[in-house]
Amino acid sequence: MAINVGILGSTGYTGAELLRLLVSHGGVRIAWITSEKFAGKNISEVFPHLGGFLDTECVSVRKLGELENVDLVFSCLPQATSKHFVSKMRNTGARVIDFSADFRASKDGVYGLPEIYSAEIIDADLVANPGCYATSVILGLAPLAQQGLLQSTSIVADIKAGLSGGGRAPSLEHHFSEANQAVNIGSVSAHDQKSEMEQQLSVLSGSDIEVSFIPHRIPVDRGILATIYCRLNKKISIEKAHKIYEQFYNKKSFVRLLPIRDYPSTKNVRYTNMCDIGIGFQDEVFVAIVAIDNLGKGASGQAVQNMNLMLDFPETQGLKSTAVYP
Amino acid sequence: MAINVGILGSTGYTGAELLRLLVSHGGVRIAWITSEKFAGKNISEVFPHLGGFLDTECVSVRKLGELENVDLVFSCLPQATSKHFVSKMRNTGARVIDFSADFRASKDGVYGLPEIYSAEIIDADLVANPGCYATSVILGLAPLAQQGLLQSTSIVADIKAGLSGGGRAPSLEHHFSEANQAVNIGSVSAHDQKSEMEQQLSVLSGSDIEVSFIPHRIPVDRGILATIYCRLNKKISIEKAHKIYEQFYNKKSFVRLLPIRDYPSTKNVRYTNMCDIGIGFQDEVFVAIVAIDNLGKGASGQAVQNMNLMLDFPETQGLKSTAVYP
Amino acid sequence: MAINVGILGSTGYTGAELLRLLVSHGGVRIAWITSEKFAGKNISEVFPHLGGFLDTECVSVRKLGELENVDLVFSCLPQATSKHFVSKMRNTGARVIDFSADFRASKDGVYGLPEIYSAEIIDADLVANPGCYATSVILGLAPLAQQGLLQSTSIVADIKAGLSGGGRAPSLEHHFSEANQAVNIGSVSAHDQKSEMEQQLSVLSGSDIEVSFIPHRIPVDRGILATIYCRLNKKISIEKAHKIYEQFYNKKSFVRLLPIRDYPSTKNVRYTNMCDIGIGFQDEVFVAIVAIDNLGKGASGQAVQNMNLMLDFPETQGLKSTAVYP
Amino acid sequence: MAINVGILGSTGYTGAELLRLLVSHGGVRIAWITSEKFAGKNISEVFPHLGGFLDTECVSVRKLGELENVDLVFSCLPQATSKHFVSKMRNTGARVIDFSADFRASKDGVYGLPEIYSAEIIDADLVANPGCYATSVILGLAPLAQQGLLQSTSIVADIKAGLSGGGRAPSLEHHFSEANQAVNIGSVSAHDQKSEMEQQLSVLSGSDIEVSFIPHRIPVDRGILATIYCRLNKKISIEKAHKIYEQFYNKKSFVRLLPIRDYPSTKNVRYTNMCDIGIGFQDEVFVAIVAIDNLGKGASGQAVQNMNLMLDFPETQGLKSTAVYP
Repeated sequence: MAINVGILGSTGYTGAELLRLLVSHGGVRIAWITSEKFAGKNISEVFPHLGGFLDTECVSVRKLGELENVDLVFSCLPQATSKHFVSKMRNTGARVIDFSADFRASKDGVYGLPEIYSAEIIDADLVANPGCYATSVILGLAPLAQQGLLQSTSIVADIKAGLSGGGRAPSLEHHFSEANQAVNIGSVSAHDQKSEMEQQLSVLSGSDIEVSFIPHRIPVDRGILATIYCRLNKKISIEKAHKIYEQFYNKKSFVRLLPIRDYPSTKNVRYTNMCDIGIGFQDEVFVAIVAIDNLGKGASGQAVQNMNLMLDFPETQGLKSTAVYP
Repeated sequence: MAINVGILGSTGYTGAELLRLLVSHGGVRIAWITSEKFAGKNISEVFPHLGGFLDTECVSVRKLGELENVDLVFSCLPQATSKHFVSKMRNTGARVIDFSADFRASKDGVYGLPEIYSAEIIDADLVANPGCYATSVILGLAPLAQQGLLQSTSIVADIKAGLSGGGRAPSLEHHFSEANQAVNIGSVSAHDQKSEMEQQLSVLSGSDIEVSFIPHRIPVDRGILATIYCRLNKKISIEKAHKIYEQFYNKKSFVRLLPIRDYPSTKNVRYTNMCDIGIGFQDEVFVAIVAIDNLGKGASGQAVQNMNLMLDFPETQGLKSTAVYP
Repeated sequence: MAINVGILGSTGYTGAELLRLLVSHGGVRIAWITSEKFAGKNISEVFPHLGGFLDTECVSVRKLGELENVDLVFSCLPQATSKHFVSKMRNTGARVIDFSADFRASKDGVYGLPEIYSAEIIDADLVANPGCYATSVILGLAPLAQQGLLQSTSIVADIKAGLSGGGRAPSLEHHFSEANQAVNIGSVSAHDQKSEMEQQLSVLSGSDIEVSFIPHRIPVDRGILATIYCRLNKKISIEKAHKIYEQFYNKKSFVRLLPIRDYPSTKNVRYTNMCDIGIGFQDEVFVAIVAIDNLGKGASGQAVQNMNLMLDFPETQGLKSTAVYP
Repeated sequence: MAINVGILGSTGYTGAELLRLLVSHGGVRIAWITSEKFAGKNISEVFPHLGGFLDTECVSVRKLGELENVDLVFSCLPQATSKHFVSKMRNTGARVIDFSADFRASKDGVYGLPEIYSAEIIDADLVANPGCYATSVILGLAPLAQQGLLQSTSIVADIKAGLSGGGRAPSLEHHFSEANQAVNIGSVSAHDQKSEMEQQLSVLSGSDIEVSFIPHRIPVDRGILATIYCRLNKKISIEKAHKIYEQFYNKKSFVRLLPIRDYPSTKNVRYTNMCDIGIGFQDEVFVAIVAIDNLGKGASGQAVQNMNLMLDFPETQGLKSTAVYP
């Protein structure tokens, strides 16, 4: 008896990636998908690459009451809107994985970063899927945070992110001729995932951690490269630091710790749930370089990983493809 | 008992794509891989995206004699070189799929286009994997050719091709700052896949077919879009033409014939073995638009499809992923 | 006493390119610019790259009556809309260069292709600036057309065009993550510049010429590469053909005829008014490869060239920069 | 009487950009250019975009002795090699602008950053043209450094740089299909321009300044975006900080200080000598965002600016084009 899932807001980029992954997962059936913009259309008209793979009509959320109850719901709805529908879904008895920031700082939900919270995720009814930037920075510093090694005001997380992270709604900013061949930022002011990073790293550290963080728009479709600079509370060798990372990520299927003096490229994790980490020192300053796919480990891949834990599938089911290359 | 395969010349782009596909195929074991440039290196040093997925050392072809016999060998070696090693491999009893042009026009090998020659491929000892350009043009015109509808001297096949088709060896032409933001051609003179197209279409037509063909370099990693213009021997409606295509590609797993007035994009077939076809008329001129991935259906995907047929796997095994998007 | 010009519809891509060129032209003063979307804004807020170079406020066309009379008006307004305002401007005594298709087939205007109609342009009150696709195809075949060498139904003009040609209004089609890494077409049906090409080539040939023409979207910002295939009425050598082109384009400042066996790249004409042409034969089929910048020789560069002729400036004034590279 | 210049190593990317600028400078004559790789070839064969603009044969440096003496020599030779030929040239009486790092830390040469050292450059016989990364970071922090406001160990300069900065020699790293759609770094270890930044900022500050600095490879042709994070010695408002920048860059032709809450994009400075700067605070951390073109203000544009000062041309001569767009 297959497990049934529903998807709220399936026609943005996180929805598209989720569909791509679930179509070949093998353990679940996509019972329904919602879309306001494309309600009434077959999903393969919206996403022609799914032609022959998925043959489901998009329905409006207004028709949620008429849809079958499912075991698990993914909500790819935007912030605030999501909150409302997540409650509705939970009332039907469904477990929920929410992509928005609505429950990330809340006691109601479990923070869905399986490398740290897998035990809690297994039993959760509501999982708050982490932000893509936060995922990269938390995974990049967690081993040192846990050891209490981070100098709390020294951390700079400079992120370069592919443009699919900006969503599928057309805008001048993402118009090809504007975005192509351009590198720039939105704002210097604190991004809302800054507090998400700080909260998680503070819990791991057992003390308040500050992160200066700016995401940059880079003209690639997919990928996040986080360059994280920080000073440590005590001097350790690169070999010692590498050992700490090795132990922390021992047996974690989706983290590849690179050898000393090797650094990741977004190219090696594209369209996967992998997180590649390379570390080094520049004089006294420790640097972690983290590469993930913003829609993979940064969103829909991680959501499937969470689903696997919640539904007792092997953690890697449906997530075993290598990165595409070149 | 798993089936063993070997790969000659595994560290170019066709080799990389073949490895990516075989790693998740589920029915074969990669017994050995050769590389002259990277002999002695682990394949995951050459291709970091395979880290954790494949852990095999590259060997030089000079050590072929020391390697275990396998059931099937893929040769991704360059033309002429390939010929020599294909013979050697066949002497060990291995069946061979050759990526070069060496056997495409030869009686020794079966032309490995499964949409036309699947019966012959099943029993073949040597399959000549078609050229990427030829694959797109033959699939684009085969239905009309078979009906004898092509005006023999009216065909123009204008191809736009991603740069991975040019191989992995660095050159000024493919240097990023030269190739990026540029569209151009190599030469107007007849490309060697012109005769490959002409031969296959002539066989299908039962008469001599000429194709004017120029491939263009386009700054994308993957993809071929073939725009094929031709005049027909008799006037038919677009509905009639569409029906002819529909019947020809009925039950072919990897061809998606688009509805009338829909046209393919390379974006919908990237990293897959799919071939998307859209057709139309511009006044009297028939136009077929064909999209494939140059390393997928244009090379390694097609090779795996051929392998599946030869080794009695389901034709789609290991080739069922949707295109990556966006 | 400087010459005054006005620009209708200055905040699309043709307007932006026109401003860039006029700012450093040296012979004209930009008296006013209109924009509906950005009325009231300073142009350097709309286009930050003009900061420090141009300090003019955009006004709505509704305020045209309040603006000073100028010697020449460029209209970058969309088709149909343009027609209306061109009349208005001519009533003020201004000469007009219109970018739309409204007057290209009309007796009222002179077809603004200076390589063919410079004498008429010099005295014109209304110049219809040619389409970008038409410019490339007409220049690519004009020498043979004039000699009556074109086989009238054999011509295929396959065009690859940068995405700035699609304008500045955001759309899903031009959303970065959709357009990047994709090659595709809009439609097989006859594009409206098809008749523009046919008309001009028919006049030059003295007989009816048909062109099969499809433009392709290529993920580059700028550039058109036209690959034009045709059969000739009589067999001539490549040397003879080259001589015909040489004579036709003798002393034309913006056409670079490449040596035999050399072919152009869009990269060498980016952001210029140059038109690079290479020719060859593939068996019996003659091929001309033409590279222009869609916003340069394909639009605003050509408009400035026309202005120079109309206002008695040297033809190359303000258009002498080399292509940017790399 | 025109002023004569020679160029050593003219066929890399800095050489190409220098030629492009000098061709339309109007005040100098290019007497000779050297190239080892292309000796004997006409420069327009090497760089077809210069066809019709420059018609000069490349000579080998071994023939330097036979060439005419010139007023000024640009050396685009690689480090160490350059040193040798700079001496030779100075013995002929020529003044020299050297692009390598050889003289940047030396008393022999003047550091060629005109926004700071214009007085010294005017009279210099040897100008050490700054590194592209160093230019962006020094200009980004100079106003605060001069005020002694920088906390010396708090500075992180994270740089995103276009691939033309890596030069024109083909390599796997810059092979299109490898570099496209990838974001990564070379190394975490100290880059050689780190000390260049530290030296200049320390002089301005009057105390030792440390900079943590990592350059990132971004798949664009041109552009540097430097994101510079630092803490200040005393709390100042953003308005106060902006005023400090305004005063420092008052009357500097090539620096555009953006309004508060506006940030630069590489797109607005492409192919120019402009330096766009935007500043802000993220909580306590000051951030400067600096955009330059790596081959413009980061290399050849700055060299022409230096030449203008040395030869008593207006500082902006030949550098007045706006950025190309889109």
